[in-house]
Amino acid sequence: MLAAARTAFAERGFDGASIRVIAADAGVDPALVHHYFGSKDKLFLAAIEAPADPEELLPAALAGGRDELGANVVRLLLQVWDGPGRTAGLALVRSAVNNEWTARLLREFLVAKVLRRVVGTLGLPKAEGEARGSLVASQLIGVVMARYVLRLEPLASASPEELVAAIGPTVQRYLTGDIVLPGGAVTAL
Amino acid sequence: MLAAARTAFAERGFDGASIRVIAADAGVDPALVHHYFGSKDKLFLAAIEAPADPEELLPAALAGGRDELGANVVRLLLQVWDGPGRTAGLALVRSAVNNEWTARLLREFLVAKVLRRVVGTLGLPKAEGEARGSLVASQLIGVVMARYVLRLEPLASASPEELVAAIGPTVQRYLTGDIVLPGGAVTAL
Repeated sequence: MLAAARTAFAERGFDGASIRVIAADAGVDPALVHHYFGSKDKLFLAAIEAPADPEELLPAALAGGRDELGANVVRLLLQVWDGPGRTAGLALVRSAVNNEWTARLLREFLVAKVLRRVVGTLGLPKAEGEARGSLVASQLIGVVMARYVLRLEPLASASPEELVAAIGPTVQRYLTGDIVLPGGAVTAL
Repeated sequence: MLAAARTAFAERGFDGASIRVIAADAGVDPALVHHYFGSKDKLFLAAIEAPADPEELLPAALAGGRDELGANVVRLLLQVWDGPGRTAGLALVRSAVNNEWTARLLREFLVAKVLRRVVGTLGLPKAEGEARGSLVASQLIGVVMARYVLRLEPLASASPEELVAAIGPTVQRYLTGDIVLPGGAVTAL
């Protein structure tokens, strides 16, 4: 079931894949997939071995309001990666760098499970939300690479709050700042 | 020789490794290493199969002056990665993510060959330069991951100048802005 799910999510994306198709590919009844995983969300998280469930963690980070969004997103990233999510997170990043299909799955995870929700709180047009989301991702993935993969000092040993103070404003600017957006999306605000 | 060089650079760092030691480990005369590679710099670039030689490319980017530094560094990164450096760059990132020793070599490359030179133009105290350099690295590596590894849209298809406009100010702020620095380095400017 998980192998069929990985294939379907990588080929069709999170939105395009359905439990019905995944169950058919795995040769099982869709009810069985529902029974084991509960929802397409949960099946996806299991299939990619996600380091954390954004559905559980994001609401608190998003509740702080628009002006705190950048800081709260960086803080949440560091909570997951400085905590028990690091091992699974590193495995996912390693696999994504080595394998085009896992790269697609990680991209789907970031876009559909993280960025869309974060940007969704801002009520932006779709193209602008995607442009801002991809900029946010470029900074967050870079923090993961610098702190946990390359262990670049002093960033690697800095306290989470030091990094929230240094990097939060970058993410905030990408989310709500008056910037030139990649891909020709209109500049806003 | 290259294997001995990789070991020495990973174990001792770029500064700590010497051609003398590398030659001894490889069982050859130091003059032979000089003959083949010319300098420790060139030997290092060959050992890690660097995507580009910062010594050749950075001077033009640094010549634009302090206020253009962020934009010029992002522009140079995209020139290398949108150009012939991408294949070697991706191989280096893949290897660094898979292998702790290559991660050390990539870190040494970033610190000793790129960041130190970029930050060096600002005349900062050492700790502050390292703190600012590690923040710059976090954004640059993230651009590489988002654009070339995960191919996150619209960032992946954006023109270089769109990304210079969006991301250059982040790098500029990390280099010269009034920010809280990780690792307890004093805030400056």
